[in-house]
Amino acid sequence: MSGADAERHVALGPGREFDVVRRLLARWGAQATSIGDDAAILDVPVGHRLVVSTDVAVEDVHFRRTWFTDSEIAWRSTMAALSDVAAMGAEPLGILTAIVLPLADLAAVDALADGIGAAAREAGARILGGDLSRGPLLSIGVTVLGHSAAPVPRNGASPGDRVYVTGRLGGPARAWRACEQGARPLDAHRVRYARPMARIREGLWLAREGASAMLDVSDGLLADLRNIAAASRVRIDLDVAAVPVIDGATVRDALGSGEEYELAVTAPQPLDTAGFERRFGVPLTEVGTVAASHDAEVRLLNGEGLVDLPSGYDHFSL
Amino acid sequence: MSGADAERHVALGPGREFDVVRRLLARWGAQATSIGDDAAILDVPVGHRLVVSTDVAVEDVHFRRTWFTDSEIAWRSTMAALSDVAAMGAEPLGILTAIVLPLADLAAVDALADGIGAAAREAGARILGGDLSRGPLLSIGVTVLGHSAAPVPRNGASPGDRVYVTGRLGGPARAWRACEQGARPLDAHRVRYARPMARIREGLWLAREGASAMLDVSDGLLADLRNIAAASRVRIDLDVAAVPVIDGATVRDALGSGEEYELAVTAPQPLDTAGFERRFGVPLTEVGTVAASHDAEVRLLNGEGLVDLPSGYDHFSL
Repeated sequence: MSGADAERHVALGPGREFDVVRRLLARWGAQATSIGDDAAILDVPVGHRLVVSTDVAVEDVHFRRTWFTDSEIAWRSTMAALSDVAAMGAEPLGILTAIVLPLADLAAVDALADGIGAAAREAGARILGGDLSRGPLLSIGVTVLGHSAAPVPRNGASPGDRVYVTGRLGGPARAWRACEQGARPLDAHRVRYARPMARIREGLWLAREGASAMLDVSDGLLADLRNIAAASRVRIDLDVAAVPVIDGATVRDALGSGEEYELAVTAPQPLDTAGFERRFGVPLTEVGTVAASHDAEVRLLNGEGLVDLPSGYDHFSL
Repeated sequence: MSGADAERHVALGPGREFDVVRRLLARWGAQATSIGDDAAILDVPVGHRLVVSTDVAVEDVHFRRTWFTDSEIAWRSTMAALSDVAAMGAEPLGILTAIVLPLADLAAVDALADGIGAAAREAGARILGGDLSRGPLLSIGVTVLGHSAAPVPRNGASPGDRVYVTGRLGGPARAWRACEQGARPLDAHRVRYARPMARIREGLWLAREGASAMLDVSDGLLADLRNIAAASRVRIDLDVAAVPVIDGATVRDALGSGEEYELAVTAPQPLDTAGFERRFGVPLTEVGTVAASHDAEVRLLNGEGLVDLPSGYDHFSL
């Protein structure tokens, strides 16, 4: 193989790529298992089903490198993927990462590895493998595997179910807006944006307590509840006054804020919200009900009154 | 969520991204399962282990769009990932794809979907999910899942084992060189470069027949046998005159040619090479032996004589 061949076959050059992989493995230690064979080998507990999801985050599309540290970029990409397992009420098995970064930027690998490693450790996920390539901009692909005896779908909501959401919403939207305007976001908002937490243990608890449908708030509570309504062919009546809002944000922020990675969940029986908060240090708030309807939609209610949205919730302000 | 929020939260814009996903699903039909929930759900046969691997291919690093059709780019990225499952002697369960492409290039999605779908169908793999984002260049990440009761590692070669390789090598290296020089590669070389085949059924057969170590030829036979030697802590004596060379290529091409996705395999007992070729229409060639050694290395032999490589095989010509 000529030098040019080597460049073609091994994205970062043979020695260098292996050096970088060794650096990653050194930083991950015992977290990284099975790496070095063509594929990682792992086991799914007997009687459990495998759940798997993949996400890619691209510089200047999903994040700006001026807004976050490299470690934060890697953390939030990893948590975003892990959140899909949380939303199934599943337990993480492990992750695989595909990192693309400019050759001039190879020094970022250590911080990226630390962010991925810290997020995986927090979620109890092993690092099962990955790939590395040079490319014009930083991108991080994360595939996450998990297992559950009975994964919670998004299409299981039934009329009469109650609707709940974890956490307090609005922080990422406020932090994003501040960054866009060149302002400094409130610390409490920025941490929600830069260091989100996949609600793994919370999702397992909600699944055990009988969640009928669940997803993670990635596009905004209203958009994500519409996804539950559409998948379950039901209407959701959302009490806007009940939506938990982070300090310094508005209800409108809370309805539209994506990348929250909180869980939106329906359940046929009342959930122990006080017990949930004691156990996890995060609120669980009842925000609405599921109703039968020919139109799969989300109605916004303020107390008993229907909130009128003549031109969509974008123009809605409380 | 404002328009700018939407742009941030959904890489291609909400309507457009869903439209693109619908186009992908329409092209994949029943091949694509479980798509639409947070994660895909699947089962690993009882008693089997899960194998999983991820690969990313980036425009102008792993491929040039002037050399291949978009469908070929997607096919070879998918086959490259599937080949890692073949090299474990495992059966594919399914794939997940993460596609990044320039917004101006959205029309390429159909051809990319066709290439991914055709490769997955050929390998008997379902399409389990994916992600889609805009970005500065085309890149395709593929995660592949498979299962096996006893995956074949790369570190299982023992002194006395025989060494085999599938197929005839050298095509991708020759095709690459022609493309680099602006020449037209031979059709037989180009097809090996543009439309590689993951040796799934062949890998399952080799595993059943007692393969002790196996990997796919992705970096070049010599480099990949060095990986087996290093992992297994053995020496491999490679008979260069026995290496199967595609018509129109040299032994040197065959030793260095990567992205072959043929299988290199060791076995303690002789394998039925004639039966293999009858069954699969692809040759299986004995090319060397495994020996005990303190130095994990590959020795090149020509008949009985040691081939001298004073400055590495790069400067070796036959």
